[in-house]
Amino acid sequence: MKTVRTQVCIIGAGPSGLLLGQLLHDIGIDTIVLERSTRAHVLARVRAGVLEPGTVGLLDQVGVGARMHTEGLVHDGFAIAHDGVSHRIDLKRLTGGKSVMVYGQTEVTRDLVDRRTATGGVTHYEAENVEPHGFDGVHPFVTCRLEGEDLRIDCEFIAGCDGFHGASRRAVPEAAIRTFEKVYPFGWLGILADVAPVSHELIYANHPRGFALCSMRSPSRSRYYVQCNAGDSVEAWSDERFWDELRRRLPESAADAVVTGPSFEKSIAPLRSFVAEPMRFGRLFLVGDAAHIVPPTGAKGLNLAASDVHYLFEGLREHYRDRSPLTLDAYSARALDRAWKAVRFSWWMTMMLHQFPDRAPFDERIHDAELAYTLGSETAQAALAENYVGLPY
Amino acid sequence: MKTVRTQVCIIGAGPSGLLLGQLLHDIGIDTIVLERSTRAHVLARVRAGVLEPGTVGLLDQVGVGARMHTEGLVHDGFAIAHDGVSHRIDLKRLTGGKSVMVYGQTEVTRDLVDRRTATGGVTHYEAENVEPHGFDGVHPFVTCRLEGEDLRIDCEFIAGCDGFHGASRRAVPEAAIRTFEKVYPFGWLGILADVAPVSHELIYANHPRGFALCSMRSPSRSRYYVQCNAGDSVEAWSDERFWDELRRRLPESAADAVVTGPSFEKSIAPLRSFVAEPMRFGRLFLVGDAAHIVPPTGAKGLNLAASDVHYLFEGLREHYRDRSPLTLDAYSARALDRAWKAVRFSWWMTMMLHQFPDRAPFDERIHDAELAYTLGSETAQAALAENYVGLPY
Repeated sequence: MKTVRTQVCIIGAGPSGLLLGQLLHDIGIDTIVLERSTRAHVLARVRAGVLEPGTVGLLDQVGVGARMHTEGLVHDGFAIAHDGVSHRIDLKRLTGGKSVMVYGQTEVTRDLVDRRTATGGVTHYEAENVEPHGFDGVHPFVTCRLEGEDLRIDCEFIAGCDGFHGASRRAVPEAAIRTFEKVYPFGWLGILADVAPVSHELIYANHPRGFALCSMRSPSRSRYYVQCNAGDSVEAWSDERFWDELRRRLPESAADAVVTGPSFEKSIAPLRSFVAEPMRFGRLFLVGDAAHIVPPTGAKGLNLAASDVHYLFEGLREHYRDRSPLTLDAYSARALDRAWKAVRFSWWMTMMLHQFPDRAPFDERIHDAELAYTLGSETAQAALAENYVGLPY
Repeated sequence: MKTVRTQVCIIGAGPSGLLLGQLLHDIGIDTIVLERSTRAHVLARVRAGVLEPGTVGLLDQVGVGARMHTEGLVHDGFAIAHDGVSHRIDLKRLTGGKSVMVYGQTEVTRDLVDRRTATGGVTHYEAENVEPHGFDGVHPFVTCRLEGEDLRIDCEFIAGCDGFHGASRRAVPEAAIRTFEKVYPFGWLGILADVAPVSHELIYANHPRGFALCSMRSPSRSRYYVQCNAGDSVEAWSDERFWDELRRRLPESAADAVVTGPSFEKSIAPLRSFVAEPMRFGRLFLVGDAAHIVPPTGAKGLNLAASDVHYLFEGLREHYRDRSPLTLDAYSARALDRAWKAVRFSWWMTMMLHQFPDRAPFDERIHDAELAYTLGSETAQAALAENYVGLPY
């Protein structure tokens, strides 16, 4: 078997794996990134598009901020629509100057891929049967099959950045891991369409017919969602039905302003909260979706992956630079502390803004009261805002 | 049957009934208060003891503030104990100058009884079979049996201030009322003891063994609680067992400072959230516990009754002074809006600070995260504080 050597083997070439690789590269730590899919597939993935200032800072740090700052849209607030009225959450004022950046994950990934290529980082796409080994000892390694040949990568650490369905978490003995999960009884039907967004800021709509979200990728590309039944299929949702349903869930002024057009992407995503504890197993670290999943409400998924990367990078840097294990040892606790707070926030926004088919009447009213309190209190909005722009690392 | 006449017949001589009666008396509106229990019984009831500034303002308004301001304890903050550490919630700083007043409901009632007597208000104690009638028309009346004789009170409005088990809500046809309820799977075992409080401020303790609360009535009278099983009986809890359990749930420094002594009151209260909608049925208005019950966490019960009284008083004043029905017509919506926010807050504090025997592991972690977020965020603490001192009327 062909054997190569690196310092940190990174499993997964999504934004978290590539960001970690770049941060490490920039301080002289050697990495190999293994990715199961093709490069084209990775680059085509449609995902979240709202970046916290902390995530923006990390992308700037690795030198991929230029296009984001040119093409991305800075949002100083968003709206919550309820009972026919749109209430603006003024993020910038409520957080003392913070904003979020609307810039698709697809674009983030492209920028990171380009940067990795330009700086000579090694990424192996279409790596089959990727499997981490020996991470409970001092000589971990990863095996895979690459272009028909078996490959062994000896390394010092393994970063599992391979998502919820990846090999990294599955490699951990069941008894060593504890998982927490909540499945929400509905999905999000999302479309992309090349039409001007209904508003220059996002609108989160609470409505008796279900939640809706008006988002965008650019001034000419809209991303819209409606809450749908868990069992719905995309086929049941013609563009016409989608646009009709979306408009019914928006305040009249917004509904009238929706520009419709053919969708070029349409998909249904289930909503789930999931956390695996701990996030470190010897020399294997779980990062991002490999360790935790949040529902898309509040756009925390990618941002949470970025803060995991930040904590892991700090740990590895201190390990290599100072020979100190302290920060690396704190990785799981630090990452989980922030992750659970984001999981809580996403859960809270989801509970507050959606219709639940079988919710007890008391709980229904509690969430109505939560929304009424939030829309009526500057302080509650400040708490919402500080979570939305991201809690400090 | 003996018939008398008044403008507003108030059922219940607890603090809400007496407060409403006094507010109305002071603007020249005639009331009769009917109370099922003896005066001695009403005056002996041990209940909540933390008053919001709004409640304090209403008591001042009716001229009963003097003793409260002398004997009551102004609290500028309280503590949440978690994981061996006590975190102070600085109410005064977080709310821009607001505090709460620790002054027992027993004392509030006594002051209001004295004031009503001094100002010539009529209160009939030991009124049996109190029943409101005809409130869906323009000639409501209340019947009862008083000193062996039947009495009919013709009136213009009926205020149901007679608590959760009172006759007022029961008089409403079932089809006209919707109720919402949550029963928590535990109780609060509370004691009163003439010992100095462990701290000059309240301590709400979250602990794996269960919630505990250190409160007080005066600098020499302590009120302590521990979360207990729903089925527990007081007999199973000797003073010694109580003090041991209390100390185990407090941070060491607090546990060491607890002064023990014989309890002179010991009881177990179930925890329940309950709301009845609407709060108006023609000429019958439900006020306080007759319409809603909250768990004691956060001390909202009496304060919520006071804000109901405020809204009802405003409505009756405008009715009699300006012949305008608008504010009275808004009573139910205004009172319910504030009540549901307080119900939400009490539910939230209860969920966050107690141990739940059968909580799903995910929910367990969510509430841990809620607590961690709250203790780590100034903004979250400001939201907690604004609810604790009471949302604006």
